Amino acid sequence: MSAPPSESSRERGSYPKGVARRQEILDRAIEVFAKRGAQRTSLRAIAQEVGVTHAALTHYFGSLEELLVAVYRESELRLDDSAPAAPPDENPAESMRVSAEKNREIPGMVQLYSTLVATALEEGHSAAQEFATARFARLRAELAQRVRHLQSVGGLREDLDPELVAALIIAASDGLQTQWLLDPTVDLEAGLGMLGVLIAKPPTGH
Amino acid sequence: MSAPPSESSRERGSYPKGVARRQEILDRAIEVFAKRGAQRTSLRAIAQEVGVTHAALTHYFGSLEELLVAVYRESELRLDDSAPAAPPDENPAESMRVSAEKNREIPGMVQLYSTLVATALEEGHSAAQEFATARFARLRAELAQRVRHLQSVGGLREDLDPELVAALIIAASDGLQTQWLLDPTVDLEAGLGMLGVLIAKPPTGH
Repeated sequence: MSAPPSESSRERGSYPKGVARRQEILDRAIEVFAKRGAQRTSLRAIAQEVGVTHAALTHYFGSLEELLVAVYRESELRLDDSAPAAPPDENPAESMRVSAEKNREIPGMVQLYSTLVATALEEGHSAAQEFATARFARLRAELAQRVRHLQSVGGLREDLDPELVAALIIAASDGLQTQWLLDPTVDLEAGLGMLGVLIAKPPTGH
Repeated sequence: MSAPPSESSRERGSYPKGVARRQEILDRAIEVFAKRGAQRTSLRAIAQEVGVTHAALTHYFGSLEELLVAVYRESELRLDDSAPAAPPDENPAESMRVSAEKNREIPGMVQLYSTLVATALEEGHSAAQEFATARFARLRAELAQRVRHLQSVGGLREDLDPELVAALIIAASDGLQTQWLLDPTVDLEAGLGMLGVLIAKPPTGH
């Protein structure tokens, strides 16, 4: 359901110079954002930090919003590629806990994510809106699939709606991440761990 | 723990003209935001919509960020004043469900809230950061208090850490609200209802 990550830049064989240049700028932009976070800024200021002209950024990415989406999407793909896939029998709240732990190391990207989601809720920001809507839909579908599987093998409570469990886990993860960023005493990982226990099938009494 | 809402504007007896004028502008700004949402804009554009000069807005509120905080804080106070307090024995996830239901009618304020929280996560936005940090701390303390009470009377599972339950409920509410705004098929209220069931004390078997 999510839009493919800029097909052309991933195509093999033909690799025109423009595509390579776009990728080069994107690589550099990812480094810049990982360090600086996503504080509101202009395309012009980012161009300077990345070390390209404002015209080049506009040419390759269109707008600040589209650049932010491209930066986040690309860095998420890299994280996914570098991480081992979660075992299929892992409690999905536990998988989110593992992701959250990794995110601790890249607060700049977590800030960028929050900014993109907030932008998506405003009217007239179609790039951010399409990105966030597709991302949530894809994540919900993936997690719901996992929940159904775990329910079928007795790992999770069977009385819970899989789609709703998926939405709830994503919500808990996003929301706890926000609270933790503002106040590091909020135990994001323990919160997700608690949710994992709550949705797990209780051990049968004897 | 939360900062009091602009002491001077709430003082009785002395009611200087400036304070009245500030309140008047705030009232009008609340109407404007409830309608328009919080799409990124300038203080100048808001001044025009509110029908005051840019200089007046700057004089009374300082910056766009401080105006947004004042608008959200005031409209939240009004909602709290107009709503009956939740019964002390109500499941706190159920109370959040009731709030979420009310929020459906004011999507502009939900957008404004998301924008403020995202702004708070960026560096150098102290007004939004202080507001969001204090609001989360206050909400967590209130909910944790309620959770402890309910645990003591047997309404909620006693094995759950009250502070963590509080953080989880707030996170679920914020996160599901975001997903619902982007995709109205996400059942925000059912999600909070599910969390309420999960933290409730299971009926004793017989």
